Amino acid sequence: MLTSEYNKRTENYKKMINERIFVLLKGKKPKALYDPIRYFLSSGGKRIRPLLLIASAGAVNRKRVNQVINQAVAVELLHNFTLIHDDIMDNSSLRHGKKTLHEMYDVNTAILSGDNLLALAFNLLNSNLHYNENKILHEFSNAVVVVCEGQSLDKEFESLGNVTLQDYLEMIYKKTASMLSVSCKIGALCGDAPDSIVSSLSNYGKNLGLAFQIQDDLLDMKGDNRKFGKTLGSDLTEGKKTFLLLSALQRAKGKDSDKLTQLIKNKGIRAELVDTYFEIYKKYKIDILAKEFIQKYVEKAVNSLNSITDSVHKDFLNRFANQLLYRTH
Amino acid sequence: MLTSEYNKRTENYKKMINERIFVLLKGKKPKALYDPIRYFLSSGGKRIRPLLLIASAGAVNRKRVNQVINQAVAVELLHNFTLIHDDIMDNSSLRHGKKTLHEMYDVNTAILSGDNLLALAFNLLNSNLHYNENKILHEFSNAVVVVCEGQSLDKEFESLGNVTLQDYLEMIYKKTASMLSVSCKIGALCGDAPDSIVSSLSNYGKNLGLAFQIQDDLLDMKGDNRKFGKTLGSDLTEGKKTFLLLSALQRAKGKDSDKLTQLIKNKGIRAELVDTYFEIYKKYKIDILAKEFIQKYVEKAVNSLNSITDSVHKDFLNRFANQLLYRTH
Repeated sequence: MLTSEYNKRTENYKKMINERIFVLLKGKKPKALYDPIRYFLSSGGKRIRPLLLIASAGAVNRKRVNQVINQAVAVELLHNFTLIHDDIMDNSSLRHGKKTLHEMYDVNTAILSGDNLLALAFNLLNSNLHYNENKILHEFSNAVVVVCEGQSLDKEFESLGNVTLQDYLEMIYKKTASMLSVSCKIGALCGDAPDSIVSSLSNYGKNLGLAFQIQDDLLDMKGDNRKFGKTLGSDLTEGKKTFLLLSALQRAKGKDSDKLTQLIKNKGIRAELVDTYFEIYKKYKIDILAKEFIQKYVEKAVNSLNSITDSVHKDFLNRFANQLLYRTH
Repeated sequence: MLTSEYNKRTENYKKMINERIFVLLKGKKPKALYDPIRYFLSSGGKRIRPLLLIASAGAVNRKRVNQVINQAVAVELLHNFTLIHDDIMDNSSLRHGKKTLHEMYDVNTAILSGDNLLALAFNLLNSNLHYNENKILHEFSNAVVVVCEGQSLDKEFESLGNVTLQDYLEMIYKKTASMLSVSCKIGALCGDAPDSIVSSLSNYGKNLGLAFQIQDDLLDMKGDNRKFGKTLGSDLTEGKKTFLLLSALQRAKGKDSDKLTQLIKNKGIRAELVDTYFEIYKKYKIDILAKEFIQKYVEKAVNSLNSITDSVHKDFLNRFANQLLYRTH
């Protein structure tokens, strides 16, 4: 698949997704509930989860690719529900360079908008399903439970002193990778794929999700400041226990180790110290380690696709994974 | 059915429900997420929605009465999700005389616990279903949307000056009655009842829900202070737009009308003025009007059962509705 063809396909799918979201929410009342939801859903986003769902459905049965739009939008609504509630819990004021929902409106509105999005997601999930209704609902609701558990671990980590890289990987699996995994899985189930293929696509999504989150952590050090929509080093100023910080804690010695421990203890550093910490990361090759992890997970993701018959949709998933290695925001 | 038999049956069902909840949550981790949920679910509650679901299933097919425990617990978890999030939004510190979840822990924990309960509810909903899987999921997710819309209206009413009794009835339908209605409906669908019976039981639940909420408003004036778990007149001190207040606004004249308008404008009154306002309610027979409404809705609920074959479960639903007329908390 040529890059131009890949890009065109991505844009077409995104257009389908955004139009379905627009129609779904159009004219809904009360305005006090739906205006905030419309605001948040139109604020952009990469639409990664619905894209994966559509391509996975296509990869197992090309006829289904145009018949899973409701399920695709369901996973996107679910994702937005988690963003809205996480933003409250993390006290974040900006997302994609725009005000978060609780900043634009208030916390109560944000709680209720998130709740309603989750309900709308479930409502949409079983519209026009042809296969595996029960399994799909089970996987979807289970994923929400896992995401909540992941968010709980993430918040717990904030006050724990002894979080390991292993703990971190479990947390990002639950909080991020499980959702990408279930998006691919539901796509496969919508196409009535055999168990082994469902499991391959589910693995693809999981490994992609792990790579994606570590890449996100790395972008805090290496990203394109403007496009990334947040200041570089903000994970350090906030004292977030990222892949970089936890790996550095394992590798660093002497004064470097003390500095990292100090950051954990003080739950962050002043902005002017960010570069000093980036130097520590570079000294212990933490950025290279992160890239190795990302590459490893992307490879695993791509290899999961081996058992699937070649098609334009499989090719799309392949490219999608490799694209990730070069993203800057 | 004798009162003793009715009470025994209620206790048996409640025991089944509470045991299923206990088993469902036992040993679940992370503790930071599930301890708060266990705390809240063990804080009591009348278990009205699951009782209605079980009895409705029994009324259409007595064999199903022991096979709908998962669905019964699903509606109870959904109800608790709404309580936890509403308590945050309403800034309430006590429920059933115990600390609300965000008071016992914190707001973030309460948001996440609510989210997780909703996911668990959906997860449980389609366990061991024998009939109407798709319809049941659709009704359930739709009810969550309606409840969110109801809560949004309720919050909107707080700052609106011109709420009518009609607006209020629409709001309590969405916020409260819809959940009771869907509990009965799902019970009927679990028993694979014909459409007309599903609709009868749904109507029963809806009218019961309307009666229940107006009774709740009346209890703020007439309730058993100790059992009710909140101070009488607190709706007045908080300026809540209840059935009593909105009806009084329609009927009152002259200075009485001015006083009520003043309360709306000031969003509540001082506690020492509560009795003055109760006097206005009595003067315009608002308590009697409320009783008439409650009676009317209970009658409608009971009449909805006419099309259903007599059984111990129908008898139970009958009694349940009449019991409501005499509750003091």
